[in-house]
Amino acid sequence: MVSKLIPVVMCGGAGTRLWPVSRDTMPKQFIPLLGQDSTFQRAIRLLANSTVFAEPIVITNAEYRFTVLEQLQAVGISAQVVLEPMRRDSAAAVAVATEFALARDPNAIVGVFAADHIVQDSVLFVETCRKAGVVAAQGKIVTIGIPPNYPATGYGYIQPGKEISSGVRQVAAFVEKPDAERAAQYLLNGFLWNSGNFIFDATTMRAELEAFEPHVLEPVMIAVAEAKPDLDFLLLDAKAFDQAKTISIDYAVMERTKKAAVITGNFGWSDVGGWSAVWDLSEKDTNGNAVEGRGYVLDGSNNLVRSEDTLVAVIGLDDIAVISTRDAVLVAPKAKADKVKDMVTLITSKGEAEAGVHREIQRPWGKYLSVDMGARYQVKRITVKPGGILSLQKHYHRAEHWIVVRGTAEVTRNDATIVVHETESIYLPIGCVHRLANPGKIPLELIEVQVGSYLGEDDIIRIEDVYRRS
Amino acid sequence: MVSKLIPVVMCGGAGTRLWPVSRDTMPKQFIPLLGQDSTFQRAIRLLANSTVFAEPIVITNAEYRFTVLEQLQAVGISAQVVLEPMRRDSAAAVAVATEFALARDPNAIVGVFAADHIVQDSVLFVETCRKAGVVAAQGKIVTIGIPPNYPATGYGYIQPGKEISSGVRQVAAFVEKPDAERAAQYLLNGFLWNSGNFIFDATTMRAELEAFEPHVLEPVMIAVAEAKPDLDFLLLDAKAFDQAKTISIDYAVMERTKKAAVITGNFGWSDVGGWSAVWDLSEKDTNGNAVEGRGYVLDGSNNLVRSEDTLVAVIGLDDIAVISTRDAVLVAPKAKADKVKDMVTLITSKGEAEAGVHREIQRPWGKYLSVDMGARYQVKRITVKPGGILSLQKHYHRAEHWIVVRGTAEVTRNDATIVVHETESIYLPIGCVHRLANPGKIPLELIEVQVGSYLGEDDIIRIEDVYRRS
Repeated sequence: MVSKLIPVVMCGGAGTRLWPVSRDTMPKQFIPLLGQDSTFQRAIRLLANSTVFAEPIVITNAEYRFTVLEQLQAVGISAQVVLEPMRRDSAAAVAVATEFALARDPNAIVGVFAADHIVQDSVLFVETCRKAGVVAAQGKIVTIGIPPNYPATGYGYIQPGKEISSGVRQVAAFVEKPDAERAAQYLLNGFLWNSGNFIFDATTMRAELEAFEPHVLEPVMIAVAEAKPDLDFLLLDAKAFDQAKTISIDYAVMERTKKAAVITGNFGWSDVGGWSAVWDLSEKDTNGNAVEGRGYVLDGSNNLVRSEDTLVAVIGLDDIAVISTRDAVLVAPKAKADKVKDMVTLITSKGEAEAGVHREIQRPWGKYLSVDMGARYQVKRITVKPGGILSLQKHYHRAEHWIVVRGTAEVTRNDATIVVHETESIYLPIGCVHRLANPGKIPLELIEVQVGSYLGEDDIIRIEDVYRRS
Repeated sequence: MVSKLIPVVMCGGAGTRLWPVSRDTMPKQFIPLLGQDSTFQRAIRLLANSTVFAEPIVITNAEYRFTVLEQLQAVGISAQVVLEPMRRDSAAAVAVATEFALARDPNAIVGVFAADHIVQDSVLFVETCRKAGVVAAQGKIVTIGIPPNYPATGYGYIQPGKEISSGVRQVAAFVEKPDAERAAQYLLNGFLWNSGNFIFDATTMRAELEAFEPHVLEPVMIAVAEAKPDLDFLLLDAKAFDQAKTISIDYAVMERTKKAAVITGNFGWSDVGGWSAVWDLSEKDTNGNAVEGRGYVLDGSNNLVRSEDTLVAVIGLDDIAVISTRDAVLVAPKAKADKVKDMVTLITSKGEAEAGVHREIQRPWGKYLSVDMGARYQVKRITVKPGGILSLQKHYHRAEHWIVVRGTAEVTRNDATIVVHETESIYLPIGCVHRLANPGKIPLELIEVQVGSYLGEDDIIRIEDVYRRS
């Protein structure tokens, strides 16, 4: 009997192609781009089939640990969450997955999946993984190839070789992203898109990494052996992991191994690589307009209009994307998805914070949103989860007023603990040591008005923190 | 010697072609569309040449009275401000102008000017008015005709007749807005655009109104005779003015009178009739993009990008307008200016407040801006001018917290008067009678946090108001 597949979800990336919605502080895999769930949550749900899959391993950047935890809790699925203390490329992440899987089971079969891909037919997806697992157990590294529906120039391709078993073939060659002419030829010759999702026998993968890239495998083995539990996470040893070579798994193993196989994924796949892909996957009206939020289109067709907050009015334009967030608006032809990255580079060079930082910031205790800012004041809307506790802190340059608009706050101010109810307020003078907590059963919402000469996030002197943030 | 021209500025209109910037609560003539001044302020400055013009009369809707006053004060020019208690068409406004002018001077020469037009060469404009005044004094109604620079279909045209004096001709005919073919023919035949600005002898105009439209003139004569001073304004008698027939001055007099003349206005004119006109008048970069606020254009040319607040990123599009305000975004080809009205009609029908109401609301004591709103709370940024006093009021459904972030507040709360300094706050429980004033020399800024079950503007029970609002 083949062991259950150990699914590994990679979600440390930070793409900018879906800016202004996707930014460093909350990249696309954690955003509900389609429906209620994020693509990470969709991936986790997809892998929750316990007849085929074991408990998943989530590999993420330490920065996103609380978001991962919260999104797992929201779908009610548990996972082993492994934190990378710094960004390395995919070879190191696959090595981490391999080592954790082998620690669970010396015969482990591992599936590595992207957190930002979308699958249409989940039953067929699971069945594809199961079949791939059977072949992987014979010592193969089975990548999922997608039958192309257009001559894409944005994906690598796989040339399939001779059949191993029904639907699974050897890989004749991996080929780089082609130009348009080559892509058209690839389609005629039955090449497949390389989806970047693959299934392998952990022992085989370890052997290949050892053979091709010992400078990836060896530091990772130490980083995993020395990993420390940290709250609900496992934190890889930073000193060891730092030594791991930065290289993609494609270059490190896939393009070199003789053990590569490919299974055709007919389950309907998208990597949601730009606003055009979001439009493809969205519900549309009779004019082909996909509108989310308060958007209106007059005399226009096949547009994607998304708004978080403001009213968006589009007149007389076709095939464009208008993406409006609280602090930024993108207007571009849907087909120019590639240029969004360039725009983010441009505005980054101009020092615009909106390039990478969201207006609403997630924290382990809840979230906050800056709603107004002046020369000497800032107004924030703060939401604290039931049981959430902010760090014990003080500020050198600002006083704060907290007005509770929903729920109940427990405020520590110097030596006193004060319960503040709905409609009540409390004043925190400059320099006082204070802490905010939600002792109640419903979210606590409060309006914070900061007044002072300097209002930066770095004027938070943390004295104690239950979430162990420095 | 000819009397000085009495300039009358008409600024009661409320156009939607420049939505989302122009709305009912602050129409385009009061908005700084180009540079620091509004078009109303530009018009007032233009008419401040005291060798040619007497003190201006401003005719506006009662709704805009404080805005008019504030904008006059800002440019430091005094005017007689006449308030229409309800909207009538332009014939009634011209009759009002005529009666006020005759009350000043029985030989008065009057110039009627739109508040939302822009003139490039102010010296030539003044000289044109002076020349028109000389002809008007001979009993003519002299309209300013603009030499067309393209076959516009959005303006009425004037067919000039035989010359009266240098540059001034009789009007052979007024013609309605043409189709494109006719417009091209008009250009070939030397027709002029009807700018809607005209200069006349008041006695002549009164006689023509009496002959053609006594149902306009007679009620207006009573409304003017019975006009009451109200603070710094003159309020027309509502009962009488209500009886005035609603008709445009074009239909009422211009198209019927035998006394019409036309003077060519070569001073560079625009009625700023849409976003395309704003682009025409704006400074542009080498790619023809006019950007105001935080806007970036990549691979695009001849765009108009305006942002009040958010960052706007435009990629790969040409000749479009992207207009971003705090609560609404318009995206449209510049040439589709006509459709903006239709969009406003559409969103009005959907009940969207952004169709007519600005986020920032001007008040005689200052202004306020709603910065955040939840189910049971609202946060406003309130600015009170030095000396400004809000009404004495109470609320049935909400408590308020005021946090002073700049300046000093004098707060009346029931029987007490409390001075609240920067960084301090005050609480106003439900039902308490309160008043806010700025006793200081600099603007007072405060953050108001309202908490309650109903937060509408109509839960303001005014007990006393220095600005005499009901």
